[in-house]
Amino acid sequence: MLKHLKEEVYKANMLLPKHGLVTFTWGNVSAVDRNKGLMVIKPSGVEYEQLKPEDMVVVDLESGARVEGALNPSSDTPTHLELYRCFPNTGGVVHTHSRWATTFAQCGRGIPALGTTHGDYFYGEIPCTRRMTPAEIAGEYELETGKVIVETFAERSADDIPAVLVHSHGPFVWGTDAMNAVHNAVVTEEVAFMAWHALALNPELPAMQQELLDKHYLRKHGPNAYYGQKK
Amino acid sequence: MLKHLKEEVYKANMLLPKHGLVTFTWGNVSAVDRNKGLMVIKPSGVEYEQLKPEDMVVVDLESGARVEGALNPSSDTPTHLELYRCFPNTGGVVHTHSRWATTFAQCGRGIPALGTTHGDYFYGEIPCTRRMTPAEIAGEYELETGKVIVETFAERSADDIPAVLVHSHGPFVWGTDAMNAVHNAVVTEEVAFMAWHALALNPELPAMQQELLDKHYLRKHGPNAYYGQKK
Amino acid sequence: MLKHLKEEVYKANMLLPKHGLVTFTWGNVSAVDRNKGLMVIKPSGVEYEQLKPEDMVVVDLESGARVEGALNPSSDTPTHLELYRCFPNTGGVVHTHSRWATTFAQCGRGIPALGTTHGDYFYGEIPCTRRMTPAEIAGEYELETGKVIVETFAERSADDIPAVLVHSHGPFVWGTDAMNAVHNAVVTEEVAFMAWHALALNPELPAMQQELLDKHYLRKHGPNAYYGQKK
Amino acid sequence: MLKHLKEEVYKANMLLPKHGLVTFTWGNVSAVDRNKGLMVIKPSGVEYEQLKPEDMVVVDLESGARVEGALNPSSDTPTHLELYRCFPNTGGVVHTHSRWATTFAQCGRGIPALGTTHGDYFYGEIPCTRRMTPAEIAGEYELETGKVIVETFAERSADDIPAVLVHSHGPFVWGTDAMNAVHNAVVTEEVAFMAWHALALNPELPAMQQELLDKHYLRKHGPNAYYGQKK
Repeated sequence: MLKHLKEEVYKANMLLPKHGLVTFTWGNVSAVDRNKGLMVIKPSGVEYEQLKPEDMVVVDLESGARVEGALNPSSDTPTHLELYRCFPNTGGVVHTHSRWATTFAQCGRGIPALGTTHGDYFYGEIPCTRRMTPAEIAGEYELETGKVIVETFAERSADDIPAVLVHSHGPFVWGTDAMNAVHNAVVTEEVAFMAWHALALNPELPAMQQELLDKHYLRKHGPNAYYGQKK
Repeated sequence: MLKHLKEEVYKANMLLPKHGLVTFTWGNVSAVDRNKGLMVIKPSGVEYEQLKPEDMVVVDLESGARVEGALNPSSDTPTHLELYRCFPNTGGVVHTHSRWATTFAQCGRGIPALGTTHGDYFYGEIPCTRRMTPAEIAGEYELETGKVIVETFAERSADDIPAVLVHSHGPFVWGTDAMNAVHNAVVTEEVAFMAWHALALNPELPAMQQELLDKHYLRKHGPNAYYGQKK
Repeated sequence: MLKHLKEEVYKANMLLPKHGLVTFTWGNVSAVDRNKGLMVIKPSGVEYEQLKPEDMVVVDLESGARVEGALNPSSDTPTHLELYRCFPNTGGVVHTHSRWATTFAQCGRGIPALGTTHGDYFYGEIPCTRRMTPAEIAGEYELETGKVIVETFAERSADDIPAVLVHSHGPFVWGTDAMNAVHNAVVTEEVAFMAWHALALNPELPAMQQELLDKHYLRKHGPNAYYGQKK
Repeated sequence: MLKHLKEEVYKANMLLPKHGLVTFTWGNVSAVDRNKGLMVIKPSGVEYEQLKPEDMVVVDLESGARVEGALNPSSDTPTHLELYRCFPNTGGVVHTHSRWATTFAQCGRGIPALGTTHGDYFYGEIPCTRRMTPAEIAGEYELETGKVIVETFAERSADDIPAVLVHSHGPFVWGTDAMNAVHNAVVTEEVAFMAWHALALNPELPAMQQELLDKHYLRKHGPNAYYGQKK
């Protein structure tokens, strides 16, 4: 079942250690098949060196029930599912505790748009969620994590800012598919690194000019994009 | 004697350079066999590239006397022994001068719990010991180092916070066995990195919410844990 | 056409990931043949692992028209061309979003000359351009980027300071040929790293003594240079 | 001539890139044969990948004249020679522009003794020289660099603190032989890293307790040392 998607999710997960985004098992990638209403995700707590494509777990997009796979799905499964249900253009989701993005999450701060590297991928600040309430934490915690992310995007477009920092936790990043989500997770870490160092040198640093952000984001996205090779 | 345990202690020691926790010979791992009342530890000042399983030194848990091995045990041996004697659930101990944890030790500061990465492993701040007195330093220094660590845990559980920073020195980290202790040493370094950068950006940053710490620690530890695969 | 130069530009581009200056496709190197009035540059948005010497694109130095090559040239092509037209001793140009130089660019700050490492290569501060105007951004943006760089060197010598930071963007670095430009890009990153950390420790740090800067720069450049082997 | 020493100096030089202490050709190691009154040093400006043992240059300890070797000796040769002439127990000298030590040099600050990692190797702060005078810079600059280092040790022991930072320049580090000097250069970089981060978190941080410094330094050095294996 979903052999091709399992293979892709496996490969996307294996990119996390390659790009230095994870320590031990601290990360997971998923992808969705919207026609079948199914999500494929990494199993919980399995080391990357031992991971195999057939270990990927298939879960029902609506109910969250395990449809296929011998192992438990990642404990973050309900968060992934909520993002797919509420962000309809999302094809892949990544969660890590990558160092620089997690530093911002621990500070409860978003990653401001300070330069064109950021603007090439994110159309504005990568936001940080509010703190979760004791009731949310005590309740269906992982599902509530997804809900607080979705709430954070009530007045933002998840298509144009495909990443978020969960307060005191770490980044969730998404994309058109699993590989694109991992790509965006690498960029998130890179812009977090540069924003941290820019803010440390100048705590009052304002965001970049709106015109420059417009230029760079729209140069690569939307109908008038002209970066790269025609496809 | 203790061939299996020597092999394990050897392997655990070799993980220190692999994880970037040591420069030259600046680290050591030990493990205990509580039934036999013996500890196995790395020899003193031997380079990792030249280390062999049979170089591991066997020491009596109570007296500290060398029971087997041609080489001197690590000069930190009396510290390790004191931890095993006073922390009855500890099966392995690691000492390094890893960069980020040692930075906190040099500041005389504990590593506060600022996010879920920390909370998944440590049930609160990783404490820093008080300064040692001139008498302790001039006396049985390495044994006194162990005693000041134990004193630091008078009102904390060494099972729930398996790491400490020795003031102006560096981290000691433990676990259920040698491998688990090394795992926790890697995590200590990782949370030290993120805490340093969070505190540098916001020196007034408070600790994470207690509810979130409870949730994450207890999600992975204790009778109601649900992370990972059933064993 | 220009087979040798294409090979050299290809090799210079491949040094960018080797020296850790690029993530994904975020960088490009070009070189010029002034006799033929042609520039060779990396194609736009092609991954380094897939790049081949024959992918390099040949562009007319004056008109910017593509003279040879199946792929689109880098979107930064008009910036490169402007630098070659206005800096007559320049043989190669590099653009990256390397972490430390880009951090300074995001702060809108030049990299001050703080030590002999800097003085061995750059005869003074590596400047940061002014912000671009909305009209420049909305107009021929990449060409205007080149013009604002040239403006920044109105009272400086591009031969003696072969690098610039474009405000809120990143570094452009040049040299006598493509390889030399990459060499200078590595040095730019190195001095940015050290300047960042020196300024973070002492925000009031003055530039190095002029005599020492003179000594080091002139020891390696100009008619009385005595560093290295006679050629 | 001095075949064994050339081999050792070659190997010590090759350790610099291995330990991440140099970029391009920015470093050199030498060693002395005091019986013959000769010094062996790396040639100037030759890339590490192309270096061979027979490229090492032999120089007279008193006159500085080249005694053997086809290539020019390092331009820092007069500095090395001055250190050997004035520090009689020194067998090897290293100069680099390693990132963390050079950061302190650019700040004009010594590296304070903040913990036992430092105290295991250096019996107090690694000092920074005063600024050189315009006359010194305009004169025999590299020799004067050596003299200002020696001046810095007028009231310190070069045996007990085998490293110095040259103001606005970088570290010179020495040892009993070339290999030991490189070892100490690695340690200098490591303690610079940790001191930088400790001072950034707490700019008022005092030096470590004198008793602890005594304990750690004397545990490894001098007649009562007990660290490592008996030799």
